[in-house]
Amino acid sequence: MAPDYSFMELAVDLAMKNVESCAGGPFGAVVVKDGVVIATATNCVTATNDPTAHAEVMAIRKACQALGSFQLDGCEIYTSCEPCPMCLGAMYWARPAAVYYANTRAHAADAGFDDAFIYDEVGFHPEQRSLKMTRLELPRAQDHFDAWVASQVQVKY
Amino acid sequence: MAPDYSFMELAVDLAMKNVESCAGGPFGAVVVKDGVVIATATNCVTATNDPTAHAEVMAIRKACQALGSFQLDGCEIYTSCEPCPMCLGAMYWARPAAVYYANTRAHAADAGFDDAFIYDEVGFHPEQRSLKMTRLELPRAQDHFDAWVASQVQVKY
Repeated sequence: MAPDYSFMELAVDLAMKNVESCAGGPFGAVVVKDGVVIATATNCVTATNDPTAHAEVMAIRKACQALGSFQLDGCEIYTSCEPCPMCLGAMYWARPAAVYYANTRAHAADAGFDDAFIYDEVGFHPEQRSLKMTRLELPRAQDHFDAWVASQVQVKY
Repeated sequence: MAPDYSFMELAVDLAMKNVESCAGGPFGAVVVKDGVVIATATNCVTATNDPTAHAEVMAIRKACQALGSFQLDGCEIYTSCEPCPMCLGAMYWARPAAVYYANTRAHAADAGFDDAFIYDEVGFHPEQRSLKMTRLELPRAQDHFDAWVASQVQVKY
């Protein structure tokens, strides 16, 4: 299905309104299914003390609540900016049919956001990142994975 | 500060309990500040219809609520598994002092999870990914970034 620019206009309008109202960062996102908007969201990190409350994550969460599902089957996400790695990861877990974005990570970087920096960091080995990450080996740490695989009642996602 | 294995034991125990109770995926996470646990969480994607409800994201959200901040200054995150790109991105935005993990993305892949696959995908150009991603250029799409940069009252994050 071809993208519908009117949904991107809506995402961009949401981003501008969020700046004008001082509600949060300059980002907006819209989830569409069968040509109908099922969720809209803006960045509300600072307003809600939630660093994960990016527009895309919030829109995915709202859309899943609306659908009563942890998957966005057959949905499209329109976002005012290329998703950061957190939001991109959220999209992979939500599995929409398509994602459309307007600005790029370079535009976000020019406005002072870490998206491009985090993209670089994700590619590094965990112990070579600027965020201190260390593996602690525990002998029994894989037992719960074994239990998961052996379970007959697990709900896969 | 040296890692405290007792917090990792707690994260791993949470992961096992989550499997045993069929509450969600085999993952647990703990946020610690000044040697005190301020938040614990498990994966609750399927129970809450929220694909972003990984243990680390939930622990970060809870810890930020407990601290009344959108940053985890001086905190450590202990997680039963290397974070997926979504959770890693969330950590970069939350900015803890350190992250400790037990299992790796390879262990997660062996248990049927997409973490390693998503790590590979994040490194690709958006239009070369298995998730369909397309840029839609809008002439006014950067106006809200300009407004953000020009604003004197923005709360940076």
